[in-house]
Amino acid sequence: MTDPHKTVNINIRQDLFGANEDAASLNADLFKKHGITVIDIMGSVGTGKTQLIEAMCDRLHERHRILMVAGDLATNIDADRVGSHGVDTVQINTGTACHLDARMVRVALTDIDLSKYDVVFIENVGNLICPAGYSLGADKKIVVVSVTEGPYMIRKHPLTIKRADMIVINKIDLAEILEFDVDALVKDVREVDANLSVHKVSSKTGVGIPELLDSLGL
Amino acid sequence: MTDPHKTVNINIRQDLFGANEDAASLNADLFKKHGITVIDIMGSVGTGKTQLIEAMCDRLHERHRILMVAGDLATNIDADRVGSHGVDTVQINTGTACHLDARMVRVALTDIDLSKYDVVFIENVGNLICPAGYSLGADKKIVVVSVTEGPYMIRKHPLTIKRADMIVINKIDLAEILEFDVDALVKDVREVDANLSVHKVSSKTGVGIPELLDSLGL
Repeated sequence: MTDPHKTVNINIRQDLFGANEDAASLNADLFKKHGITVIDIMGSVGTGKTQLIEAMCDRLHERHRILMVAGDLATNIDADRVGSHGVDTVQINTGTACHLDARMVRVALTDIDLSKYDVVFIENVGNLICPAGYSLGADKKIVVVSVTEGPYMIRKHPLTIKRADMIVINKIDLAEILEFDVDALVKDVREVDANLSVHKVSSKTGVGIPELLDSLGL
Repeated sequence: MTDPHKTVNINIRQDLFGANEDAASLNADLFKKHGITVIDIMGSVGTGKTQLIEAMCDRLHERHRILMVAGDLATNIDADRVGSHGVDTVQINTGTACHLDARMVRVALTDIDLSKYDVVFIENVGNLICPAGYSLGADKKIVVVSVTEGPYMIRKHPLTIKRADMIVINKIDLAEILEFDVDALVKDVREVDANLSVHKVSSKTGVGIPELLDSLGL
């Protein structure tokens, strides 16, 4: 090795994605038939996806009937948290699978009476990589990032960002204390997609949540 | 649905893991032949894996010859950061793959003269799920978690924790300000594996780094 710093690029095949897209279309048809707005919420562990859903549910539950679908490897922690707000929930435990796919969602909803709901929030398995490749048939894909994740999470995950309909920067109440440059993060998003909708929120304090819901048409 | 809160368990097949284990054994033989200590460092994005490696390199580079292998979907940010400390680096860009595997590491090291090094730090792709299933042939697997990730990351990832040789709780300098209960997190680790080594560190301030290196025999 002449250069002490080398780069190797690895490519993997993506055969699985086609079959998932078909299943996602069927889900989308089902949701449309019932007039349900479905939001797929992705993001790494600890970005506050569950707290974001709780904050949205608290503002929506008087005018919308909400179902929350929670994806995790293990535990019912997230579904229990959202359920405590009076929202119906379905927990999907994926075991070792690092994302939900369209068929998991379909199976999980099999015996659910979807005519009871207007809005479904799907909280995907907590990581920023795998969920991006698998559509679930949702109307919108939100990627949640947090100021606690350090400055590089957008630049390291360009495909996830490209596939998102909206970016939520969460925990902005901690930005000052962590000396985190939120504007630089927004700039990173703009470099991937100049037109992507970006919302700065604190699910804890409620800042930015009404504007986010407006933007989702809820 | 009679119960408004239901749970669905999904199982996936794990055919790929056997072939990876064979490749990991070959890597382990290669590292042993050269008398190299290899540490596989896993953890979600933003837990401070790179900063931890920088902190360890700063304390080790006078007595050890170090190579850092960085796994990311895209960018050379992490390798560049560690390289700026005078450490040789190999960046593996996985594209869409959410973990390194043993063959990627073997391919990346093909033209590297391993007799030049005593210690190899492998920074795995940033997520807490996928890397756990794929051994790389390292001597130790460290899982890095951070007090910024919220209280549930151990309980949600029992398999990752079970497969680790050591847990590093990073950014403990932020625990007080985030009102984070570090002891509760240690207790969660103990419930998965009562004998697992746990180190509380701040890669930023250096607290706990010497004890961690002692524990790694470095």
